[in-house]
Amino acid sequence: MSISLQPVDFASVRFTGGFWSERLRVNRRVSVPLVYRRLQETGRIGAFNLDWRPGREPVPHHFWDSDVYKWVEAASYVLAERSNPSLAARLQELAGRIAAAQQPDGYLNVYYTVVEPKLRWTNLMRSHELYTAGHFFEAAVAYHRATGDSRLLEAAQRFADLIGRVFGPGPEQRPGYDGHPEVELALVGLYRATGRRRYLELARFFLEERGRPPHFWDRERRERNDPAEPEPVPYERLQAHRPLLEQTEAVGHAVRAVYLYSGLADLAAETGDRRYRRTLDRLWESVALRKLYLTGGIGALAVGEQFSGDYHLPNETAYAETCASIGLIFWARRLLDLDCDRRYAEVMEAALYNGALSGVSLDGRRFFYVNPLASEGRHHRQEFFGCACCPPNLLRLLASLGRYFYSAAEDELCVHLYGAGAARLEISGVRLRFVQETDYPWEGRVGLEISPERPVRFRLRLRVPEWCRNWSLSINGTSLSGRLSRGYLLLDRTWRPGDRLALDLEMKPELVHAHPAVGTAAGCAALRRGPLVYCLEGVDNPGLPSIFIDSARSFRPVRVESGPLKGLVLLKGRGWRASRAGWEKRLYSDRAPKLEPAPVIAVPYFVWDNRAAGPMRVWLPRPPAGS
Amino acid sequence: MSISLQPVDFASVRFTGGFWSERLRVNRRVSVPLVYRRLQETGRIGAFNLDWRPGREPVPHHFWDSDVYKWVEAASYVLAERSNPSLAARLQELAGRIAAAQQPDGYLNVYYTVVEPKLRWTNLMRSHELYTAGHFFEAAVAYHRATGDSRLLEAAQRFADLIGRVFGPGPEQRPGYDGHPEVELALVGLYRATGRRRYLELARFFLEERGRPPHFWDRERRERNDPAEPEPVPYERLQAHRPLLEQTEAVGHAVRAVYLYSGLADLAAETGDRRYRRTLDRLWESVALRKLYLTGGIGALAVGEQFSGDYHLPNETAYAETCASIGLIFWARRLLDLDCDRRYAEVMEAALYNGALSGVSLDGRRFFYVNPLASEGRHHRQEFFGCACCPPNLLRLLASLGRYFYSAAEDELCVHLYGAGAARLEISGVRLRFVQETDYPWEGRVGLEISPERPVRFRLRLRVPEWCRNWSLSINGTSLSGRLSRGYLLLDRTWRPGDRLALDLEMKPELVHAHPAVGTAAGCAALRRGPLVYCLEGVDNPGLPSIFIDSARSFRPVRVESGPLKGLVLLKGRGWRASRAGWEKRLYSDRAPKLEPAPVIAVPYFVWDNRAAGPMRVWLPRPPAGS
Repeated sequence: MSISLQPVDFASVRFTGGFWSERLRVNRRVSVPLVYRRLQETGRIGAFNLDWRPGREPVPHHFWDSDVYKWVEAASYVLAERSNPSLAARLQELAGRIAAAQQPDGYLNVYYTVVEPKLRWTNLMRSHELYTAGHFFEAAVAYHRATGDSRLLEAAQRFADLIGRVFGPGPEQRPGYDGHPEVELALVGLYRATGRRRYLELARFFLEERGRPPHFWDRERRERNDPAEPEPVPYERLQAHRPLLEQTEAVGHAVRAVYLYSGLADLAAETGDRRYRRTLDRLWESVALRKLYLTGGIGALAVGEQFSGDYHLPNETAYAETCASIGLIFWARRLLDLDCDRRYAEVMEAALYNGALSGVSLDGRRFFYVNPLASEGRHHRQEFFGCACCPPNLLRLLASLGRYFYSAAEDELCVHLYGAGAARLEISGVRLRFVQETDYPWEGRVGLEISPERPVRFRLRLRVPEWCRNWSLSINGTSLSGRLSRGYLLLDRTWRPGDRLALDLEMKPELVHAHPAVGTAAGCAALRRGPLVYCLEGVDNPGLPSIFIDSARSFRPVRVESGPLKGLVLLKGRGWRASRAGWEKRLYSDRAPKLEPAPVIAVPYFVWDNRAAGPMRVWLPRPPAGS
Repeated sequence: MSISLQPVDFASVRFTGGFWSERLRVNRRVSVPLVYRRLQETGRIGAFNLDWRPGREPVPHHFWDSDVYKWVEAASYVLAERSNPSLAARLQELAGRIAAAQQPDGYLNVYYTVVEPKLRWTNLMRSHELYTAGHFFEAAVAYHRATGDSRLLEAAQRFADLIGRVFGPGPEQRPGYDGHPEVELALVGLYRATGRRRYLELARFFLEERGRPPHFWDRERRERNDPAEPEPVPYERLQAHRPLLEQTEAVGHAVRAVYLYSGLADLAAETGDRRYRRTLDRLWESVALRKLYLTGGIGALAVGEQFSGDYHLPNETAYAETCASIGLIFWARRLLDLDCDRRYAEVMEAALYNGALSGVSLDGRRFFYVNPLASEGRHHRQEFFGCACCPPNLLRLLASLGRYFYSAAEDELCVHLYGAGAARLEISGVRLRFVQETDYPWEGRVGLEISPERPVRFRLRLRVPEWCRNWSLSINGTSLSGRLSRGYLLLDRTWRPGDRLALDLEMKPELVHAHPAVGTAAGCAALRRGPLVYCLEGVDNPGLPSIFIDSARSFRPVRVESGPLKGLVLLKGRGWRASRAGWEKRLYSDRAPKLEPAPVIAVPYFVWDNRAAGPMRVWLPRPPAGS
């Protein structure tokens, strides 16, 4: 084991009275029960009864199971944090139903049990059998952790053991891997939960085998020998075009990519293998420097839900699936534990507050699957989706949010994110309470109270976000000039009960600009304050889409006092609006539209489409010279 | 008959030594034979043998016939202009094959004869049976006109008579109409070629019946009574959501729309009915003022190949099908004869020189189906398409190009377009030769020589394009100050053999701006000179996509002396390039990219993607103030 840092357990982190406590309350009280109802209404829950018969509608889909597993995982996190007898009962009932659907040999997938049992393990490229297995393992670990009930964890091990018999390098085994990565990271989780090293080895096998010639999916295709079968998708779309350790560019389906890279990061953490780290570094740079939306969205293309080429980041047609931002958070989180470097935390925070959080409405009832950076008014939140991966994925992210705030090692505590609440920790064998008092992300002042049971020396790393130009820190009222180590303030001292830190992160509205190779942002800027990207909506800004912005200096944060956005901080300032006078009878002209001063109201990106339908823009043109 | 103006017959108009003579030579010598080969290779020609049997590949498609008919039409135009024995032989052979495929009752459609004969006339919404009939009628008229051979024209009448028996208002008839308009305009053409008024009445029936409740397609659907049938597309996509005369906004599939509106314009010309004119005016404004790309492209959305909402004109994802620009030219041409107003000619010319002509490569061998206004480098010309409507459509447009230049009435001649060549005309009973000496569209000077057999008085209308700010005119060396009447200079005089006019249209590079509601052009401008929209390609401009342009003043037209673009006029000038220095390790920054002066080379939009693959932009950002 080469792990030095590990995430602090989410259940030790409580959010109280701030931004996240409200979001998590909505998640717990509204979205978690609502998604359960949707899963039920659409037949996903009932499918586990295995009573489907040919001709009956709906036909279970081959990855329906995963939607249910993600809900089980989310509900377990909710339950681990606080008791909830009715939720516990529902979970137990569902766990029983799932366990009963497991086949005698350990196999578990509804579709390949009742709809196409003969096709089991015949088409890993498309079947999602290992993908659904992975989500089952994650759910089983979470459920066991929350309830102590070992039924699902035992079922998971039986299934993992079956998979381990079928797949592997041995002469009687098949050298396969799934078209949709997920089982790899889940197997590492199962290893961590059970201590059974063979699950780690199986994860390693899947990761290392992926894309190796001769290609397993070619072999499967030959074995199926079905002339009517459509052409396979290009293996690049599934990150299987060459061995993973030879991949240098993030390509293909974005969610699959970041799930795959997360599994690789887990393996790197468990093995310390430098080859994995080098691959992860290259892939990270490919994403973070060339393929990332300002919002933390990834996967620009709707076709294949995939990454586009370097710097190709279209706004209105941005796919930027909610699940992809969530997976990016998973991946960044793992990299942070390998290397406490701010560059990972920046992306994790941007994705969390923007491209992931935009996936659910303020009331917790409507969802975005696709998160464009501009809309002419036709893109709206929906109650659910036929392919329903995103809503339960958000549930489990939010229900385990504490996991993303802190890493700890024997004598070290890293603070990656800020938010009002308290964590219970143990450092150097001493239990301590770590309290954050802050209105982050609306304000940049963070009060930290560190209360060890007795004085204890450890290194505290506090992230100073990259967007923050000026910051100050004091300890027990004495100001301190700290040094940044890869973006973290490092404080190495003996901490005593009641020690208080005041970290003040200057949080000003600012204009952000994109790399010149990003054509879709050329001549434009975006408004950002702290970790929040802002956007303009038509409901606030009658001139959209032609609102111009030249500076952020006039912008002030303004708290909304009432209405649907109550409690949120908007940015209000001045920009320019292209006048439509004289344009009634022409669509094009040799004269440029005249710009006139206009008030501008910007809302956090994650908040858009919570009110009236209408256009939205993140990237705003800057007023041309001479206009 | 209320027609006043009529197009001058294309075969009377010859292009010599200028822009169009070369384009038409390539069309005649390369594209026409090449598209025939493609039609042959893909099975479209052989399908007329009616020897398809179940299980054989390829299965004829239900509108394959139309691709062949458009080729027949184009080849007939080529033949009408100059003799070509081998083309004539091929056409005759093909005409015989087509005629032989006609069924004893007059029906003609390969798919519904050999593949699904039982489905004849059961699903007009999807079947394209009347659409292919319409293209057959157009081909038949053209073939007869070119060869004097009446086989196809007789076959067309038999088919039209069958259609007229099946469809119509009578108690034994069906009140149907096709999902893809085309037969309407073709029936008017058949009426004009044969004098049989019943074809005009049938066209009127189809146009007036369209969208009337109770909806015919609902009735067809009930009659098919097939529970497995997918939901119909929204009727709005096919311009059948309400009666045509109640439609006020251009919606749905753009090609279908402009074919439909062209048929309505034909009906308006033949009947003089003011209701038709009012509808056409409203629909024209919807397109020309709110849904038209600068290039003359229409139909912004790939999904459904349809118009988007007002002012929604995305660049990179612009669909702007070649056929849609061609259909827009058809429509604008018809409106010009109803009302010689420049506004129609402007759109016709823009579509011709940009969005339509871009559909074929300079060498005539490769085609665009989709004509975006920006590309990050992945959109390229292709040799052919599975849905191959565009290439043969371009063939027939170019082969009959003369049709778009002049309109004539008893005592009037309107000149809509300029191009080197000569036309033979008859005005007021006097034959005359009308010669244009010009390098248009590369230069704006046009010398006109008018040579009537004997002095004759008539009104000459010369279009002064809207892009032209300054112009001068002289007659036989004496300068003249004329008055513009709806954009045309009106000269009412007695013309004598050898009269010479010199029209000088100032043609300067200029920046064009879009209506403020067009968000995708906010803060941007496009380069235009004369009728040509220019674009930047990566092969000439290393800074793309971040090339900024503040003025057209530095731009000069430069004739290319050699290489693949030889003879074309580029625009060379100065702009600004965003420097990538300092951006190596960041994708976003609070500092705007620095702009540095850069040479800019622009090529006519229709020329793009004729050299190295790479990015392209029409709308260029203007340098922000202070940068």
